[in-house]
Amino acid sequence: MSAKPLIFITNDDGYQAKGLRALIDAVKPLGEVLVVAPDGPRSGMSSAITSLQPLRVHRTEENEGLQIYACTGTPVDCVKLGLSELVRRKPDALITGINHGANSAVSVLYSGTMGATMEGCLFKIPSIGFSLDDHSLTADFGDAKKVASIITKEVIGKGLPSGTCLNVNIPKKYKGIRVARQTKGQWVKEFVKSKDGSGKDVFWLTGHFRNEEPDAELTDEWAIRNGYVSVVPTKIDMTDHDYIPEIKKWENLI
Amino acid sequence: MSAKPLIFITNDDGYQAKGLRALIDAVKPLGEVLVVAPDGPRSGMSSAITSLQPLRVHRTEENEGLQIYACTGTPVDCVKLGLSELVRRKPDALITGINHGANSAVSVLYSGTMGATMEGCLFKIPSIGFSLDDHSLTADFGDAKKVASIITKEVIGKGLPSGTCLNVNIPKKYKGIRVARQTKGQWVKEFVKSKDGSGKDVFWLTGHFRNEEPDAELTDEWAIRNGYVSVVPTKIDMTDHDYIPEIKKWENLI
Repeated sequence: MSAKPLIFITNDDGYQAKGLRALIDAVKPLGEVLVVAPDGPRSGMSSAITSLQPLRVHRTEENEGLQIYACTGTPVDCVKLGLSELVRRKPDALITGINHGANSAVSVLYSGTMGATMEGCLFKIPSIGFSLDDHSLTADFGDAKKVASIITKEVIGKGLPSGTCLNVNIPKKYKGIRVARQTKGQWVKEFVKSKDGSGKDVFWLTGHFRNEEPDAELTDEWAIRNGYVSVVPTKIDMTDHDYIPEIKKWENLI
Repeated sequence: MSAKPLIFITNDDGYQAKGLRALIDAVKPLGEVLVVAPDGPRSGMSSAITSLQPLRVHRTEENEGLQIYACTGTPVDCVKLGLSELVRRKPDALITGINHGANSAVSVLYSGTMGATMEGCLFKIPSIGFSLDDHSLTADFGDAKKVASIITKEVIGKGLPSGTCLNVNIPKKYKGIRVARQTKGQWVKEFVKSKDGSGKDVFWLTGHFRNEEPDAELTDEWAIRNGYVSVVPTKIDMTDHDYIPEIKKWENLI
């Protein structure tokens, strides 16, 4: 008898997040589920790791085929600690989310959801990050669950290439899937200046994304804005291989 | 009269780090220098950003052609806040480091030094991260300064392609430069389990890098281990473009 697939889940909104529960519900019929998630919100933590403080972890829930652990670290810490200390076998998939808010375009760089996904990928586990394009407290994850279930099932069945994971962003209402690339652009007008209690200047991070290619159809931003789930295959090798020959001559600088 | 080049500097070891001072010394002859660095160590912060707390910044030093600010945030916060609130013109280069310890191979994903470098790149500033392969308190940055000066000068003169920055790792003693790619591998044996003061389990992140391709000559790890400065052109577009056609058929899943 072959064991059911083991699905490892984490997120960056914390183990009590509604989106995490939606993701568990979505994939529970596909296998055994192990959750190791931060003990509170860790948005914008990227691939940050904790080395100057110790990590703590405790089990918050145990049911048939489902265990949930809360960890004091970042999303990547959760993956590292879970894979090193808590799993009894290599997971068949590592999935993250469902994030409260999109992680499209360059947000892939800041996202704890995607940081954790890339970490799973480093350990050669087929890994997928799921995000819903809705930050509101009343966000409805119902339709997003269907997407998470379908894509996770596909990936468990067929795998992913070594070194590549998926960044999946889901609009509130969708009419299909588009395989896309990361949109070019950057966040602008990023700070609101205000005063603290003693009148000193403080700066709050905010801003909005400026899309450099709003009309480009094969981008994740275009897909989401036009009612499609975007699926971006995302590499952990960040080398610009095409540029290597251009600067080969720099080897003569020293 | 044209203005001197403006060089923006940050790091992840904090504004008092020896490696930061070495980097200032190295490039001061090339232009005007503005430093916005964390007010303490922020190693392993990747591209993390701070949105739930306000940021504070204060000037710690002002000399002819040199200003230094300390900021309460992450390395990426320092770049964002500096570019948004502190610069009077667009920097001609954004350089980071010199980091205490290498940021080769997959460490590019965890590194605050490289997070800040990629952030500069997002803002279309030619950006370079410098790291010395020496964690010791007594590390000698003398030879690394020469590398930082030569490469920064080259980049100010010739620029870099939009969307590509450089990850430069410097061994203690070097005999030349090698343009390289990011080495494949992952960190393993990552945790030491110990007890806190009340006897509860805690986990400390540690471990070592397992190189999956130790004999591959065109990698950054090979270069450093063989006495060369490694220069890896690093892209902020993480899309696996080659894999897009393979999963195009997934558009029919919904």
